[in-house]
Amino acid sequence: MSGGRVTLIGLGPGGAHWLTPAAQAALDDATDLIGYGPYLDRVPDREGRLKHGSDNRVELQRARHALALAAAGHRVAVVSGGDPGVFAMAAAVFEALEAGEPGWLDLPILVEPGITAMLAAAARAGAPLGGDFCAISLSDNLKPWELVTARLAAVLAADFVICLYNPISKARPWQLGEALALAARHRAPETPVLFARAIGRPDEALQVVPLAQARAEMADMATLVMIGASTTRLIARPGREPIVYTPRSVTKSPCATSQGRT
Amino acid sequence: MSGGRVTLIGLGPGGAHWLTPAAQAALDDATDLIGYGPYLDRVPDREGRLKHGSDNRVELQRARHALALAAAGHRVAVVSGGDPGVFAMAAAVFEALEAGEPGWLDLPILVEPGITAMLAAAARAGAPLGGDFCAISLSDNLKPWELVTARLAAVLAADFVICLYNPISKARPWQLGEALALAARHRAPETPVLFARAIGRPDEALQVVPLAQARAEMADMATLVMIGASTTRLIARPGREPIVYTPRSVTKSPCATSQGRT
Repeated sequence: MSGGRVTLIGLGPGGAHWLTPAAQAALDDATDLIGYGPYLDRVPDREGRLKHGSDNRVELQRARHALALAAAGHRVAVVSGGDPGVFAMAAAVFEALEAGEPGWLDLPILVEPGITAMLAAAARAGAPLGGDFCAISLSDNLKPWELVTARLAAVLAADFVICLYNPISKARPWQLGEALALAARHRAPETPVLFARAIGRPDEALQVVPLAQARAEMADMATLVMIGASTTRLIARPGREPIVYTPRSVTKSPCATSQGRT
Repeated sequence: MSGGRVTLIGLGPGGAHWLTPAAQAALDDATDLIGYGPYLDRVPDREGRLKHGSDNRVELQRARHALALAAAGHRVAVVSGGDPGVFAMAAAVFEALEAGEPGWLDLPILVEPGITAMLAAAARAGAPLGGDFCAISLSDNLKPWELVTARLAAVLAADFVICLYNPISKARPWQLGEALALAARHRAPETPVLFARAIGRPDEALQVVPLAQARAEMADMATLVMIGASTTRLIARPGREPIVYTPRSVTKSPCATSQGRT
């Protein structure tokens, strides 16, 4: 059969207001939707379009399923939250492609960009990503924890704003606390830390606290945690939440915090 | 006058297919559009909506103009490319707010997230942002070059994928070459480097070269440059461009490249 394809889609962090027309068109065109169950639940049912929901943490199996269906002529949309290329399904599909059937290499595979969680969180808070920033997955399922902490130490010393994806789960309860403790050795106690949960959805919650008060319990699986740089600051407003932003200018000497705080 | 507000919008990197419905609605609602001329040119003219175009590099002046118009009751949309919070106008507006009229603090100021250039570039290439990554503005207009290189050295040593915004301009011709030379001291010659120009627009161009062949002349002001991590790899395909992706797993010991290559 011909005409099969795989399109990788991110639903964005929230509702349809942050879904691009291109991603919407790919959803509309699909004969089969593949993804983690809760993401598929966000897409309306439609006659003639099958949903193949699966559990979390079976990404490679899901990716092979998508490629096999496409090879059989289906127009498959693999659905992630956020952006499919940021700690989501795109890399898993290419891993499966590389290790899979040679014929799969002929399939059209398209990635549609989406609004990833850190952009939504930043927009809601103000402009905390106004300077240089990085994104780190705190999960040590696929990389050693020593690598995570080495990377954290590097970007803390170099004064990046740090976005933590996958900050915590039942199976990974202690990593975020360790990351926050590491941050406290490099950044001032008043550094703004954002806990941005489910931004864009009806149950969204944004909490901004000084680093000294940041606790792992403030996050869950749906939370993006953002640790400000030394320049990240608040603007107080009468009767409104303060704005969090990172000025574009940096005047201080480079990496003044690189030796950590004592 | 009441009802004035400022909404910060990113047009995304390309055409309307990557503009979120929320950003579109904010454009439709605006009485005044403010931004760098070429961005405003992308928005259709409409009766009753004024365009206030300005030159590049007058961000603070533009931001003050937006706030003053909003204080006078206008519904102002400040238009950037990409995402307004990533090396764009949002931080400038908050800088102007902080230093400006106290009454401006009562204005509603909303930020609408958008597809930033690195997400579009990554989607077009495959999934190069499948691991930890960072975004650095290579411009030394607002921060010392020594800080830029210190940050680059830190994330090269810690093996992040590195996205370079503002890589080059007529006024900053040599910085990208120096950054690539620095990268070559940490990463293998075959490391994939992406030059993603105007992705999503009719004149888009994506060039993927090994680091050893990467040259500053491959970029211009509209280019996003992405330097792969040590794990970033290519999948060759018959009759198609290779896919660039970074696997989710890292098994090697942390920061093996931290001492640089010799």
